[in-house]
Amino acid sequence: MIEQASPPCDTRRVTAIHPLCLELQSTWFTEIPLVAALGVEIVEYTDDGELRVRAPLDPNRNVHGTAFAGSLYSVCVLTGWGSAWFALRLAGLAAQIVVAESRIEYRKAVAGEIVCSCRPDPDSLARSVEELRASGHASLPVICGIDTNGKRAVTFAGTYVVRREK
Amino acid sequence: MIEQASPPCDTRRVTAIHPLCLELQSTWFTEIPLVAALGVEIVEYTDDGELRVRAPLDPNRNVHGTAFAGSLYSVCVLTGWGSAWFALRLAGLAAQIVVAESRIEYRKAVAGEIVCSCRPDPDSLARSVEELRASGHASLPVICGIDTNGKRAVTFAGTYVVRREK
Repeated sequence: MIEQASPPCDTRRVTAIHPLCLELQSTWFTEIPLVAALGVEIVEYTDDGELRVRAPLDPNRNVHGTAFAGSLYSVCVLTGWGSAWFALRLAGLAAQIVVAESRIEYRKAVAGEIVCSCRPDPDSLARSVEELRASGHASLPVICGIDTNGKRAVTFAGTYVVRREK
Repeated sequence: MIEQASPPCDTRRVTAIHPLCLELQSTWFTEIPLVAALGVEIVEYTDDGELRVRAPLDPNRNVHGTAFAGSLYSVCVLTGWGSAWFALRLAGLAAQIVVAESRIEYRKAVAGEIVCSCRPDPDSLARSVEELRASGHASLPVICGIDTNGKRAVTFAGTYVVRREK
C-alpha cells in the first residue's frame, strides 16, 4: 500500500499585524469620515518602521479612469500622519499631529490599487523626538511614495507639526 | 377709500448660475466617486473668471473636529482643475487636464464650511492658451485659496498639464 505523503508543516513564522495598526485604523475610521469613502486600510508596519497603507481604485477613480489626485494625496497625507503617530507612540510620546505644508508630484497615473509607503528618516525623527521632549513641540518631515508597476508614480513630502499632549 | 400701494417691481437683474457650472458639477459627480463623499458643490463662476466651490464640514472632519487636510486638498485640486476646464472651454478649446504637481500650505484650521476660490492669472492663462493652440499641449499654473473668518487658511499652488483633445 502506498502511503499518501502528508503536506510538510510550514514552520515559517507567521507575521502578526502590529497591535498599534488596529488602534490607528480604528482612530481613522471613527474620527475621519472620508477614510471610509477612500476605503483606506493599513497593510502593515514593518520592523524597520515603514507604514504601508492601501486603498482600492474603484471609489477613487477620476475622469480618466485612473486614481483621482485628491485620493492619492489623501492616502499620502494619512500615511505620513500615521507614520508620525507610530514613531511617537513607540517613543512613548502622546502628541497632537497636524500637517503644516506639503508638496506632491504625480509622475505616472495609478491604474490599480493605491499602495502608499512611508518611513521617516531615522535622523530627522530622532531630532524631532528630542525637540519634542525638550520644548513640547517640533516639526517632523516625512516622505511618502506610491508605486505603480514597480516604478515611483507619486512622491509626497510633508511637514507635520507635533505638539505634546498634556 | 384708501388704495393700498402695490410693492415696487424689483428690476434688478437676477444673476443666473453659469450654464457650464451645471456641466462641470455633473462631470465631477458622474466620474469621480469621491466628489459625492466630499459633498462638493459649485457655488458660482463669476464674470471675472473666478470659480468658487464649497463642501460642508461634517463629512470632512478630522481627528481634531476641523477640516481634514485631504479634504481641503481635494476641494482645492478640483477647484483648480475646474478653473482650467472653464477657462479652456470659454476659449473654445477641449483639452485633457491633469495635475502634475502641487504645493499646499495649511495656515489655520478650518472649523466650518470649506469654500475654495480660484481665478487663473490672466497673463499665465493667455500664454497657456496660446501654447496649447500652437503645440497641442501646455502647462497651466493656478492658485486656489480657502479662507476662514476672513483670513487665508489654506493656499494651494498647482501646475496642470493640458493636452488638446483630437
